[in-house]
Amino acid sequence: MRALVYHGPGHKSWDEVPDPEISADTDIIVQVDATTICGTDLHILKGDLPKVRNGRILGHEAVGTVDEVGDGVRTLTPGDRVLVSSVSACGTCQFCRQARYGQCLSGEGGWVLGHTIDGTQAEYVRVPFADTSTFRVPDGASDEEILMLADVLPTGYEVGVLAGGVRPGDIVAVVGAGPVGLAAIAGAQLFSPSHIVAIDLSDARLEAAKYFGADVIVNNSRENPLQVIRDLTGDLAGRFGADVSIEAVGLPATFEMAVKLVRPGGRIANIGVHGGAVTLHLDEQWIRDITITTGLKDTSSTPTLMRLVTSGQIDAKRFITHRFGLDEFEEAYDVFANAADNGALKVVLSR
Amino acid sequence: MRALVYHGPGHKSWDEVPDPEISADTDIIVQVDATTICGTDLHILKGDLPKVRNGRILGHEAVGTVDEVGDGVRTLTPGDRVLVSSVSACGTCQFCRQARYGQCLSGEGGWVLGHTIDGTQAEYVRVPFADTSTFRVPDGASDEEILMLADVLPTGYEVGVLAGGVRPGDIVAVVGAGPVGLAAIAGAQLFSPSHIVAIDLSDARLEAAKYFGADVIVNNSRENPLQVIRDLTGDLAGRFGADVSIEAVGLPATFEMAVKLVRPGGRIANIGVHGGAVTLHLDEQWIRDITITTGLKDTSSTPTLMRLVTSGQIDAKRFITHRFGLDEFEEAYDVFANAADNGALKVVLSR
Amino acid sequence: MRALVYHGPGHKSWDEVPDPEISADTDIIVQVDATTICGTDLHILKGDLPKVRNGRILGHEAVGTVDEVGDGVRTLTPGDRVLVSSVSACGTCQFCRQARYGQCLSGEGGWVLGHTIDGTQAEYVRVPFADTSTFRVPDGASDEEILMLADVLPTGYEVGVLAGGVRPGDIVAVVGAGPVGLAAIAGAQLFSPSHIVAIDLSDARLEAAKYFGADVIVNNSRENPLQVIRDLTGDLAGRFGADVSIEAVGLPATFEMAVKLVRPGGRIANIGVHGGAVTLHLDEQWIRDITITTGLKDTSSTPTLMRLVTSGQIDAKRFITHRFGLDEFEEAYDVFANAADNGALKVVLSR
Amino acid sequence: MRALVYHGPGHKSWDEVPDPEISADTDIIVQVDATTICGTDLHILKGDLPKVRNGRILGHEAVGTVDEVGDGVRTLTPGDRVLVSSVSACGTCQFCRQARYGQCLSGEGGWVLGHTIDGTQAEYVRVPFADTSTFRVPDGASDEEILMLADVLPTGYEVGVLAGGVRPGDIVAVVGAGPVGLAAIAGAQLFSPSHIVAIDLSDARLEAAKYFGADVIVNNSRENPLQVIRDLTGDLAGRFGADVSIEAVGLPATFEMAVKLVRPGGRIANIGVHGGAVTLHLDEQWIRDITITTGLKDTSSTPTLMRLVTSGQIDAKRFITHRFGLDEFEEAYDVFANAADNGALKVVLSR
Repeated sequence: MRALVYHGPGHKSWDEVPDPEISADTDIIVQVDATTICGTDLHILKGDLPKVRNGRILGHEAVGTVDEVGDGVRTLTPGDRVLVSSVSACGTCQFCRQARYGQCLSGEGGWVLGHTIDGTQAEYVRVPFADTSTFRVPDGASDEEILMLADVLPTGYEVGVLAGGVRPGDIVAVVGAGPVGLAAIAGAQLFSPSHIVAIDLSDARLEAAKYFGADVIVNNSRENPLQVIRDLTGDLAGRFGADVSIEAVGLPATFEMAVKLVRPGGRIANIGVHGGAVTLHLDEQWIRDITITTGLKDTSSTPTLMRLVTSGQIDAKRFITHRFGLDEFEEAYDVFANAADNGALKVVLSR
Repeated sequence: MRALVYHGPGHKSWDEVPDPEISADTDIIVQVDATTICGTDLHILKGDLPKVRNGRILGHEAVGTVDEVGDGVRTLTPGDRVLVSSVSACGTCQFCRQARYGQCLSGEGGWVLGHTIDGTQAEYVRVPFADTSTFRVPDGASDEEILMLADVLPTGYEVGVLAGGVRPGDIVAVVGAGPVGLAAIAGAQLFSPSHIVAIDLSDARLEAAKYFGADVIVNNSRENPLQVIRDLTGDLAGRFGADVSIEAVGLPATFEMAVKLVRPGGRIANIGVHGGAVTLHLDEQWIRDITITTGLKDTSSTPTLMRLVTSGQIDAKRFITHRFGLDEFEEAYDVFANAADNGALKVVLSR
Repeated sequence: MRALVYHGPGHKSWDEVPDPEISADTDIIVQVDATTICGTDLHILKGDLPKVRNGRILGHEAVGTVDEVGDGVRTLTPGDRVLVSSVSACGTCQFCRQARYGQCLSGEGGWVLGHTIDGTQAEYVRVPFADTSTFRVPDGASDEEILMLADVLPTGYEVGVLAGGVRPGDIVAVVGAGPVGLAAIAGAQLFSPSHIVAIDLSDARLEAAKYFGADVIVNNSRENPLQVIRDLTGDLAGRFGADVSIEAVGLPATFEMAVKLVRPGGRIANIGVHGGAVTLHLDEQWIRDITITTGLKDTSSTPTLMRLVTSGQIDAKRFITHRFGLDEFEEAYDVFANAADNGALKVVLSR
Repeated sequence: MRALVYHGPGHKSWDEVPDPEISADTDIIVQVDATTICGTDLHILKGDLPKVRNGRILGHEAVGTVDEVGDGVRTLTPGDRVLVSSVSACGTCQFCRQARYGQCLSGEGGWVLGHTIDGTQAEYVRVPFADTSTFRVPDGASDEEILMLADVLPTGYEVGVLAGGVRPGDIVAVVGAGPVGLAAIAGAQLFSPSHIVAIDLSDARLEAAKYFGADVIVNNSRENPLQVIRDLTGDLAGRFGADVSIEAVGLPATFEMAVKLVRPGGRIANIGVHGGAVTLHLDEQWIRDITITTGLKDTSSTPTLMRLVTSGQIDAKRFITHRFGLDEFEEAYDVFANAADNGALKVVLSR
């Protein structure tokens, strides 16, 4: 088959490689019908994630058709349409038995696809622990919209919105309006905050933020987000800041901004994938009752989000700005890497 | 009357000053029967807390006798014995109406005593918002033991143990075995963790930690606390770290240690008063589902802790290592400032 | 002044009575600009609430203008427009210091207005503990819409929606579509459930339920609500019931229905004022992980709801079906008591 | 092999039956080294649980040695010592993927052993979904103490103590001091309540309650538990009742008592297996902010409790009052059924 192979920092190509095979009886082989590229893949190509070895097939998101199942797979049969989650889970370790799938202790659990084992940017992919690492696709749902449930929507929702504890009437600041920031906005919207303030350097992304539910947009190359938020809270004594702030970039400066934006008692939910340490101003914050969270999604929200996507309460298709065939992977990467110029959010590659 | 007055960094003295007077009708004047010195007072003397002005009477902990009450005070009369909490609360602002007294928005709410208004290291003290800033002392309880409820016990319990979410069977790391760290150990003990690991540079403090409930003590000048904790979790796959880690020092290095010690999904509760920024290794932690909290106590736990102290379930007297008269304040400060040498925990000054 | 006075079961009249006077220095006297009638007032007139004595002025909801303030009132001055909450709170007792205002231990705390002290269905009303029993009305907000925050909206939201733990994607059953049931629907809507199922015997009320956000309406004189809910969950293995069920009637049969409608792990939030015991089928439910809650609101949500009402995210005016002058109280009671015939929801009486 | 077989209400015998066989590849066969009798087994023999058919082998608790494993079993091999939990879980259904194992939707999930499939009171037992229905026994732990983790300890802890939300300083009432009530007492003790009040009709059981941590014992044939609790709370304004009340009997009268004992804002955790409906006095309780919970354990606490048992923080052996060989089952049942006379708590039958 053909697959998008990583050849060290800066190098990748659409290569002919051997077909994947069942290696454990809980594996399945999935024919990839639709896949996509994540910002994390760009990090890998920069060499930021040293666990990714040369020769690795990238990608951790897919919708596809079950092609082959191991003897120990209980809930799936060939021909089933499945969502392949970016998080795999053995279902039996200490963390999985607490439903903390993102922290699965198995060698092939947690985020492994396109990271420590071959991934989904290929014609076929081997998925470990299939019963607890995939979800059945409901009849009538499109590949594209379900594909947004592989990573971006549950990550924005679980790691951003739920960890941030968004509540009705809140002011929510979302720092970064790339795909996962937009997913956090779409997820926050479900809780009827009074204001969602989206902050980014790209006007195109801020326009998308409005579509997904941002009430206020701030281009922080031109405006000071703290001032904007203080203006919003001005008439309410003491709410000098956002109730919840969601970091969806992964840089020291955006993390510092996210912390600075919250009121006493506020929460900062970090989603961003960071390549280095950040500065935390505990001299200012030790007394302010703040809570900072980090994390990987557990997929606990995936069935709920699937219901909301298929009922139309979340417009998942709106994330998709560009479509390609599988053999146009290199072009798709170019488009996605230049999102600032072309307004790309999610690019979908379909069989 | 006489009081301990701050005269700028490095300078303090036991001076003759005017008696305090009722200024708002919700004030009371309390005759100080017992007070103490907090590590934060040492920070002030170093000049670390710029809000403290020359001429300020220090101190934010007291047990005393109500001497005079404003017309608007509803629950107290002269002669009542009261605990003066380090946190004052107006009871009517937006945060107080949510029981978040530590974040009171009133000018004389939150931590103000010995900070932005005159404090308790004096013969008399004016306490604002008396109905919601003090607690009645039960008959039969000693001044000394109740004094430990003014700050150290509820701070260790609310900001350390409750924010940290300690649960039965947990491994709890407490970084710093000064008075507030010991209070966190005493509070953590209430939840029956499997192990409390106390970490400090002073063997004397580590001995005290054992008394309050630490099962394992680590002098980190000689031992690596991460290794000690890994040895504890060794036989349980994946629990490579503490469930909860409590920072009770207030330095960059101890905060970094506290973060490093927790397992995936763990919680870090910062109690330490920090004078500068710290480094947070989000490159390691973004994926690990950690939660970091900061805060000031709300006194929500004070009635509960008072019950546990008076019933003997918490041995509050054990915090007290040295006793003085009020006019021995300068000597008491010397002893407390040299705690590393003399094993001082809390020093009590009584009328 | 004139006021609506209770003269024993079945009897009330709009009488000339003495003006209220400040009796404690934390009291205020409020000129009633707008008030309303609650279903609970009808219960009182049936004799169901024996604590209500002959001669009591009824009513526990008002928006008005502060006329006089006691010396101990700190946050209000004559001329201020205020919302008078149905729950009064001393702010200093054990429960108030935990922000559980509905359970205030003071003699004039909790639900006292129109219950154990004179109420708001009058030209003037004395409000105890004014600082913690009222809320300032924002400029530009109408009396009518703010009046809905005195009881019906925070009760539906706190006792129904928050206690019931409604979450995005849930199926929520609301048994009873009177004003408080509709408030629960409006509140549930803030959490983006997948379906809100409103159940009532009145088609007019069910139509109102649709306006406030019910997706499915069931007239249980004609349809079986359990079957309707099972049809909704049909395609999702095992979700044989609602996630949350809210009882907003106060009868044994409606409580039993509310319990029966939830799935394993579901929650039943009782809002209804019950005049007798109910049957709980623990033989069926002991194994099903259900949670049942009861309660009185604490007003913790009032500031949030006020923001959502004034921003238009909740359409509070839509509750109001009939308007009267204060001296038309007897007619207003007639209309409200015959809601089944005339579609009355909330009736407003204005100066 | 031989097994204890149910032959309809009132009838059981120790019969020769066919050996169990692997039927699904996730099954294991366990040689039973130790098993016990549960109060629920007595309910079955009274005919209270109609799902139990004639010919069923009873029992849902065991410690044993893995004899045979299905091809799909991943974490166990013959010879492993395992705890067989009373709750089986498929690990892949909607509820299991949320770690709600007690509500497993699979035909052989939830409580099935000795209920809808053959159980553990036999020489061998087939355990479905072995990877998620059993726990490895640590080296050095005795069969007897680990056996207490099959049902009684996690049930008392999860369904009683955790659902009841016991906290330090609480007053906890436990209605019923049979084995599961005692387990609730042992579990509550882990949270350092100020008082645990055990209520039962048997003085022998009340003595055992004291051993496990009850501070106050009430024989309700002679004393009024409400009065005892009010005396405890007397000096604390408004705490007229227990903070948490745990029902561990399963009768209408004990449930009503459990509800009556709590303060406003209190929680009632029902553990009792009920054979009929109960009366809930919502006319008294609608306004009191109470929470009632029911449930089956999910085994989420089993690893934690195992740690606490093996470290000696919970003395599991103390539950065991009588010991028998497997072929003495009929005598063991007689002893257990006459617990009121002979003080029996748990009886253990060992190979």
